[in-house]
Amino acid sequence: MSRPTLAVSVGDLNGIGFEIALRAHEKLRTLCRPLYVVHREMARQAAERLGLALPEPFEHVAPDAAPFTIAPGTVSARAGAYSFASFKKAVDLTREGRAVALLTLPIHKEAWMEAGIGYKGHTDALRDFFKKEAIMMLGCEALYVALFTEHIPLKEVPKRIEKERLTRFLLDLRKETGAGKIGVLGLNPHAGDHGVLGDEERIIEEAIEEANKQAKKEAFVGPLVPDVAFTPKMRENFRYFAAMYHDQGLAPLKALYFEESVNVSLNLPIVRTSVDHGTAFDIAYLPNRPLSLASYLNAAEAALRLAARKSQRP
Amino acid sequence: MSRPTLAVSVGDLNGIGFEIALRAHEKLRTLCRPLYVVHREMARQAAERLGLALPEPFEHVAPDAAPFTIAPGTVSARAGAYSFASFKKAVDLTREGRAVALLTLPIHKEAWMEAGIGYKGHTDALRDFFKKEAIMMLGCEALYVALFTEHIPLKEVPKRIEKERLTRFLLDLRKETGAGKIGVLGLNPHAGDHGVLGDEERIIEEAIEEANKQAKKEAFVGPLVPDVAFTPKMRENFRYFAAMYHDQGLAPLKALYFEESVNVSLNLPIVRTSVDHGTAFDIAYLPNRPLSLASYLNAAEAALRLAARKSQRP
Repeated sequence: MSRPTLAVSVGDLNGIGFEIALRAHEKLRTLCRPLYVVHREMARQAAERLGLALPEPFEHVAPDAAPFTIAPGTVSARAGAYSFASFKKAVDLTREGRAVALLTLPIHKEAWMEAGIGYKGHTDALRDFFKKEAIMMLGCEALYVALFTEHIPLKEVPKRIEKERLTRFLLDLRKETGAGKIGVLGLNPHAGDHGVLGDEERIIEEAIEEANKQAKKEAFVGPLVPDVAFTPKMRENFRYFAAMYHDQGLAPLKALYFEESVNVSLNLPIVRTSVDHGTAFDIAYLPNRPLSLASYLNAAEAALRLAARKSQRP
Repeated sequence: MSRPTLAVSVGDLNGIGFEIALRAHEKLRTLCRPLYVVHREMARQAAERLGLALPEPFEHVAPDAAPFTIAPGTVSARAGAYSFASFKKAVDLTREGRAVALLTLPIHKEAWMEAGIGYKGHTDALRDFFKKEAIMMLGCEALYVALFTEHIPLKEVPKRIEKERLTRFLLDLRKETGAGKIGVLGLNPHAGDHGVLGDEERIIEEAIEEANKQAKKEAFVGPLVPDVAFTPKMRENFRYFAAMYHDQGLAPLKALYFEESVNVSLNLPIVRTSVDHGTAFDIAYLPNRPLSLASYLNAAEAALRLAARKSQRP
């Protein structure tokens, strides 16, 4: 059986993303055929700056953007436009079936802004490309956390706890991950303590009940007391959690599994994963400093696993 | 130098608290003289149920409540009243200087309710006894988290972010702990991302600035991005954090240090610490099951350390 092809968008070439890809290449190609969305001359320029040789063979597709001169750690419209074009082309290649999944390297939000790109990030763009409610999930094999609400002010969160949307979210999450059991967090301290500390748990309870009914099994458990949900004992019971808001899920996850974690977009026609860190402009193209490849390699493995799962689904 | 006396309130005797005290006694008395607030006959009743001998000498003071027959794992008004009386007397002993600090074992909230006791818990009662704004801090030597807001619905939290109160809270926290540097969390995802995801960080920033001015040094750092604040690298920089709300601080803390953590009441005339778990009615007085003494012993050490610190303060 031939190895599956994984499309890799190169992210902001003024940051650390592509260095990680180059350093992880030998390991990655034991798992798949990486297809880099970058001009050969841009890849060579980055490799030379790092004192590395370009891998041979180097499978690549050029994005629809102009090559430019790399300026490590610099916000630039040209780098922003290039990273967006690499991402866009990688999405298209995956959609067309030339790759089984997409792995994205980090872009720089301000560089996108300078290039006039209106999206806040990859997930935001994917929602628009596919007109679908993407689910953002972060984690690693030991612990995955899916976010019911994401990048909104904390004060907006309680208003967004709605039964129908939450029920749909839970069922979609289960379908996409194949998780046997999902821990669903409450919203308030002590999960509201029977209404004394907030009453949104009533809605969460109803959504869990409805989702279990539709799933025809007790797939969803909760509302869990948020500050106890991630203790070692609870993590023996659950590998997948649904968090009501960004920091509720991500603060415990990152406290426990910072370097290993990956970012996954679920509920889309294509599988997309990403490293769980940014462009790290402050350490881009520096010699001799430690660089963790864990998140990147985990993101590749997650992409391949999810793609295999998706291809087997009716 | 003689060992300091530590008052121990025995908590709900239908739960696991006093068993922990008995099993940890030999270790504890190497650190201090434990003074248990319990009738000798009640202590003996509990010990006999557990097949343990009462330590000799057994220093104790009887609380102002009637002895009763222990019923493991049962919510009862008599047990509730007894646990409150033990707590109340232990507070008095500490206030009068017969003990340097108070260590509380867990009470059962419903038993307090059945006994007609109007407080939600120890901290709530202490605020009322002393008419002072107690600060609730949880953690262990590796990581302490103080809570700016505690047991309130999540939707109330953003409204409570006020400059004057937060400034006072930060300065009190520093004074009580002697922490050299305190990490102050933002409220919103990505600490608001320059106002795009919420603007309470502006208030937090102002409070930090004012507190640093009054402290005459950069003692307070933030607003930190909440989901990154507890990653290993950040924890190298900070051992003390100020969290804006309950789960923001406690979910990461408990994910990392569940069994070791203790609960500390600061900013009161007396030092009080507590284990960071409940009565565990489901496993009370059961034979041969594992029982962690770590939180109890850590709570005792924290109490003695804070008391020593307090006695040296002008």
